[in-house]
Amino acid sequence: MTTTHFDNVSVTTKANVYFDGKCVSHGFTLADGTKKSVGVILPATLTFNTGAPEIMECVGGSCDYKLDGTDVWVTSGEGDKFNVPGNAKFQIRVTEGFEAYHYICHFG
Amino acid sequence: MTTTHFDNVSVTTKANVYFDGKCVSHGFTLADGTKKSVGVILPATLTFNTGAPEIMECVGGSCDYKLDGTDVWVTSGEGDKFNVPGNAKFQIRVTEGFEAYHYICHFG
Repeated sequence: MTTTHFDNVSVTTKANVYFDGKCVSHGFTLADGTKKSVGVILPATLTFNTGAPEIMECVGGSCDYKLDGTDVWVTSGEGDKFNVPGNAKFQIRVTEGFEAYHYICHFG
Repeated sequence: MTTTHFDNVSVTTKANVYFDGKCVSHGFTLADGTKKSVGVILPATLTFNTGAPEIMECVGGSCDYKLDGTDVWVTSGEGDKFNVPGNAKFQIRVTEGFEAYHYICHFG
């Protein structure tokens, strides 16, 4: 099931713009202090580096992802989640002509 | 003064992606039901159409805007606001090589 919204949060008004705008996200904080972000990845193949571990949850569109140390591209669509370890690299690929990948990034 | 965040809101996880991703926004709702959005416009010249009147507040970067019926481009930087009437057209221009325009869109 897709997480359509988060209630009772504090949203940061300025976006994070990565890779010349191929990835745009807005951070927000839950009432208990937990930080998350919501974002979009436009058609591109991008390499990300984690600090803390992340869970990426798809809320629209889809992507293929490849974790470091594997040769396998896995598709992640609406409602799907995948885990990325801390201090790791991973790639996300959104195919040209397809809808952007809309995601929630959960940390920790 | 720049509005850095909004507390106690409900944020929509899926973004609005306009103009092939040149404009990306996330909607949110205040506790009293008021709807707003936070977004980014990447370098481009875009024409928008309003339904309800809007107040555009810059929270990072800058743009030039031109209201319908005028020939004047006006610069809007961090902390600046401008009003757009309802059912109107306006243009926003962000110059290539400059930081994206980060905004809050207040409706009504």
